[in-house]
Amino acid sequence: MARYDFASDNTAPAAPEAVEALVAANTGFTSGYGTDPVTARAGDLVRAMLDADAEVRFVASGTAANAISLAALCRPFEAVLAHEHAHVCTDETGAPGFFGQGLGLIRLPGASGKIDRAALEAAVTQPDVSYRQPAAALSLTNATEYGTVYTARAMRELIQPVKTRGYGVHLDGARLANAAAAGFDLKAIAGLEVDLLVVGGTKAGMPPTEAVVIFDRALARRFDARLKQAGQLPSKGRFYAAPFIGMLETGAFVRHAAHANAMARKLAGLMPFPVRHPVEANGLFVEMDEVTLKRLHASGWFVYRFLDGSVRFMCSWATTPEAVEELGEVLRGIA
Amino acid sequence: MARYDFASDNTAPAAPEAVEALVAANTGFTSGYGTDPVTARAGDLVRAMLDADAEVRFVASGTAANAISLAALCRPFEAVLAHEHAHVCTDETGAPGFFGQGLGLIRLPGASGKIDRAALEAAVTQPDVSYRQPAAALSLTNATEYGTVYTARAMRELIQPVKTRGYGVHLDGARLANAAAAGFDLKAIAGLEVDLLVVGGTKAGMPPTEAVVIFDRALARRFDARLKQAGQLPSKGRFYAAPFIGMLETGAFVRHAAHANAMARKLAGLMPFPVRHPVEANGLFVEMDEVTLKRLHASGWFVYRFLDGSVRFMCSWATTPEAVEELGEVLRGIA
Amino acid sequence: MARYDFASDNTAPAAPEAVEALVAANTGFTSGYGTDPVTARAGDLVRAMLDADAEVRFVASGTAANAISLAALCRPFEAVLAHEHAHVCTDETGAPGFFGQGLGLIRLPGASGKIDRAALEAAVTQPDVSYRQPAAALSLTNATEYGTVYTARAMRELIQPVKTRGYGVHLDGARLANAAAAGFDLKAIAGLEVDLLVVGGTKAGMPPTEAVVIFDRALARRFDARLKQAGQLPSKGRFYAAPFIGMLETGAFVRHAAHANAMARKLAGLMPFPVRHPVEANGLFVEMDEVTLKRLHASGWFVYRFLDGSVRFMCSWATTPEAVEELGEVLRGIA
Amino acid sequence: MARYDFASDNTAPAAPEAVEALVAANTGFTSGYGTDPVTARAGDLVRAMLDADAEVRFVASGTAANAISLAALCRPFEAVLAHEHAHVCTDETGAPGFFGQGLGLIRLPGASGKIDRAALEAAVTQPDVSYRQPAAALSLTNATEYGTVYTARAMRELIQPVKTRGYGVHLDGARLANAAAAGFDLKAIAGLEVDLLVVGGTKAGMPPTEAVVIFDRALARRFDARLKQAGQLPSKGRFYAAPFIGMLETGAFVRHAAHANAMARKLAGLMPFPVRHPVEANGLFVEMDEVTLKRLHASGWFVYRFLDGSVRFMCSWATTPEAVEELGEVLRGIA
Repeated sequence: MARYDFASDNTAPAAPEAVEALVAANTGFTSGYGTDPVTARAGDLVRAMLDADAEVRFVASGTAANAISLAALCRPFEAVLAHEHAHVCTDETGAPGFFGQGLGLIRLPGASGKIDRAALEAAVTQPDVSYRQPAAALSLTNATEYGTVYTARAMRELIQPVKTRGYGVHLDGARLANAAAAGFDLKAIAGLEVDLLVVGGTKAGMPPTEAVVIFDRALARRFDARLKQAGQLPSKGRFYAAPFIGMLETGAFVRHAAHANAMARKLAGLMPFPVRHPVEANGLFVEMDEVTLKRLHASGWFVYRFLDGSVRFMCSWATTPEAVEELGEVLRGIA
Repeated sequence: MARYDFASDNTAPAAPEAVEALVAANTGFTSGYGTDPVTARAGDLVRAMLDADAEVRFVASGTAANAISLAALCRPFEAVLAHEHAHVCTDETGAPGFFGQGLGLIRLPGASGKIDRAALEAAVTQPDVSYRQPAAALSLTNATEYGTVYTARAMRELIQPVKTRGYGVHLDGARLANAAAAGFDLKAIAGLEVDLLVVGGTKAGMPPTEAVVIFDRALARRFDARLKQAGQLPSKGRFYAAPFIGMLETGAFVRHAAHANAMARKLAGLMPFPVRHPVEANGLFVEMDEVTLKRLHASGWFVYRFLDGSVRFMCSWATTPEAVEELGEVLRGIA
Repeated sequence: MARYDFASDNTAPAAPEAVEALVAANTGFTSGYGTDPVTARAGDLVRAMLDADAEVRFVASGTAANAISLAALCRPFEAVLAHEHAHVCTDETGAPGFFGQGLGLIRLPGASGKIDRAALEAAVTQPDVSYRQPAAALSLTNATEYGTVYTARAMRELIQPVKTRGYGVHLDGARLANAAAAGFDLKAIAGLEVDLLVVGGTKAGMPPTEAVVIFDRALARRFDARLKQAGQLPSKGRFYAAPFIGMLETGAFVRHAAHANAMARKLAGLMPFPVRHPVEANGLFVEMDEVTLKRLHASGWFVYRFLDGSVRFMCSWATTPEAVEELGEVLRGIA
Repeated sequence: MARYDFASDNTAPAAPEAVEALVAANTGFTSGYGTDPVTARAGDLVRAMLDADAEVRFVASGTAANAISLAALCRPFEAVLAHEHAHVCTDETGAPGFFGQGLGLIRLPGASGKIDRAALEAAVTQPDVSYRQPAAALSLTNATEYGTVYTARAMRELIQPVKTRGYGVHLDGARLANAAAAGFDLKAIAGLEVDLLVVGGTKAGMPPTEAVVIFDRALARRFDARLKQAGQLPSKGRFYAAPFIGMLETGAFVRHAAHANAMARKLAGLMPFPVRHPVEANGLFVEMDEVTLKRLHASGWFVYRFLDGSVRFMCSWATTPEAVEELGEVLRGIA
């Protein structure tokens, strides 16, 4: 039986706090499509976490949440600025173009998953020409795909040049909990002029659910119709809202992420292969040749070779110290 | 506190069989995106229920499942034949056109939600002209939006003229359980040349989940990429598969639907207003003027005026005989 | 050899004024994509005709021009209010949904191609619900599909209730020349809060070309990129602009339309069949049974049965009095 | 007054053979939407030129023709293999994604505009994974964007590995005339298993028009509806067909291209800057720093810096030897 403990942070089960809240919410008849009291309560908790007076929706898919957000910020003949290895660029089967009717992605370089500021400046100062899709939005990811974490200040430096030009800003927070656990101040987001934020529930240890936070109220008009048309306005909304209640009321959202981050650091300490990126969140990326990776797979542990050629190990709320040690031993055996 | 017991069949909580299976599946690490053993087991159960060697996928949204199916059967410059009051025509915010890049809907009349055969014949014999979207698929719904149920024979009569022309067939089974409980033979579907079937989990009493059944294997190629791009390939697939296991292994899927159907019949027996459509599944549609509906709402019971002008009462697995009696009394009081 | 003189107003050749201007513009090298002096001159003439400080673009297709306009005014989860027999609803193969990613069309009734004001009011006062595409724009057509002509006042009465709600307004002017020849004041359009106007060149007697007039300057931002992506930013722009120069400088645009309108009236005078709609522009719609239409076709004259069941005869700049008389005689022979 | 002689091959006027045919076709009434005898005759001439029994359509836009072709070969969750500097990748404002609802482009490297065979092999042997758009078609361009020309044999070597996998093939022939004049055998295309070919009229010296050639007859079904919905089924079809008649009947199509190619070679002979790519068709690409380019612009001659950083000079049917010499002198003056 293959071990998927480190293959991704979505191979874990859901945390007890999330499941218990889901079960608790499963009582009695209630109104549909996010108009129920459970959804209202979860929205309040998200607003409190962010200290922001924003609209909140709960949806099933992070891929859809990101793509819908980009489509809300860009017209089809415009483009989104994003890190070349951002999830929206590489792991969503072209969903932004599908939901955004061909909207473009301008792929920017940058070390360890963070957009290079000079590259961003170069991109936004490109002249508008009719034969190219001009930028209209910036998409950031925190924690990044490489397990690094932007500070609020670093984000502000990237957001400022696009806001000056009137562009929108999307923040992919699939691993926002891990960023928060690493010290990123969630209450700073509202002040960063982010327009749309996706708060990841799934990778944070919930059953499938993501929160879309609409900071720019002008974007909120008819957002439910937008979601419904896109298959992301659940009729039984409480099932997507309740896990957030369980995780936010108990503090498990950040606490579990802190544990995941700690497990990544622990694994780094045991790792016999060179570590490629700073270990700030719950991912660890190491240099490993193909033969060695095959031996690791053969030993029963499944992990992915990632976009930059390194091999990725992800930790989650459910990663145990024992599993980290067990894996460490296996790795030392094949190193 | 408003009562939503009869407002829809998605206002109910999830049935214990579904929730228990979900909780049971929530253990250990597993592979993502529908490659896990829980999803495999649920697929087997759906295949067994249908007695069909078909591909099965579990997704979050019935709206998306329907729209993706239609997009798989039609190109943007073609159209789908559907009942004018089918869910895909009236309740999905234009999702078929969104997922299908503008694909058309040819709205057909027919009593009590069933497509009129002569109207279908007239539509399929329209000449292909370049300035109009020609039909390329038929979409049926069973049980229908008006709580009536097609027999396999009646479906065959509608499917035959489109299959003769090489068109695809989609079956919206949001209430397939209710149709089955009313006598529709689920094992007949495979022989009806249906290409894509959506089996409703949500309205059958599960947490949000729908099964997409791909009878035409040629359509299955790269279907996971299709779903992923459309935001309907859940990473934690077991949460959408497990409820089907709980409901199918125990027989609760049809048993609960039979209860819902029985509650609709019971309500029909107590109803002081004229019933407009045959009560074959879990819905009851009655003639009620606006003043009376307002009084019903004022009494705390929420129901919708429907597309044909009647007022709709939906029953579900969770509808109690006591609630039916309580509502019956209220209705007699305002009649 | 079949006679297409009355089949449509696009069966005619291009008028000499248009062709001469095209040939005259075909000299020397010039910059591309509408940045050339010919395009600039044609834009000035359109602005002068409308007495409006608007942006003007010249494109190849009226279908595309309309669909792009609607896509600019509506998001995919919104809808356009239009006459149920408007060209955008019935003759463009779903182009609005294709260019607008599934945007909806709300089909309104109304006598002789004009939107019924009460029906419009009823539509705009519908509540916004998430499961239906709410209106965001109004599309008018002048002259209408049935050869009738709105006055500026009648248009204002339809526009006012949508502008009050912040909706956009599109005017399909495929036969704007005919409307002008019938007395519609082109200089009134700017005051009517029309946002996007398509001025038909093709049906007015030009080689294929349409002018898109952008009254709302906010919509003009990146419009060239919008057109380029949609295949409607011609590299050799002068070929689409020059015909407008020839037709507008000489007055032929309205003069030829006046001739076409006069030919329709002349045909009405000779018509042995009941005329169904007021003959205000260049079309004539008569009641004719299928056997008689077949005899007309057999006699060599091709015309279409139209959406309301009547048979349509269209006149153009090239229609001769002799052809009208010849046709009149044929019609009397089969009546 | 700036000189655009070498800025592009679409800055030239239309050749007399094309314009005369257009004027000649402008007589009498005829049926619309490509059903007229002029269009039939032009289609025959294209078929004869290619020695192929294929369907032919005449459209207004090369950008649209390419994008529609790719959309016909790929579903939205699939991708097209193309040279990273192909027109579809870099100069069409994302039109493939717009017409193809987000279809992906897999950008392949290769010297001087030709796809590197090893890179293609590597791309087609990528495993199908659900989170990435897998290849479904190959797009080639001949002559290439860098003025080089594929032989039929070189094309076959690129087509074979994709056809083995059942993928479709699109050939962008915006400069097919120049390729033919350089020795590429047009009659070889049919044997290469190209599915859709776009034959450029505009850059070959016609008024705006492109021919879409459908070799795979299965793709031809409802193609007119596809074109109409996309705004590319001209009502007055003869205006797009007639120029092809004039150019093909007289041999001007290839003869003018041979002249353009000769002018590029002549310019190469006079060029004081290093030439970067083989001069096989009508383009010349040279190494020139920004200061020098500014001086060239200041001297009144407009040309573009191209995608690979070189400066591009394009010749056309209308380029005169005198202009080449005049430019040569200017260049030597600033070198």
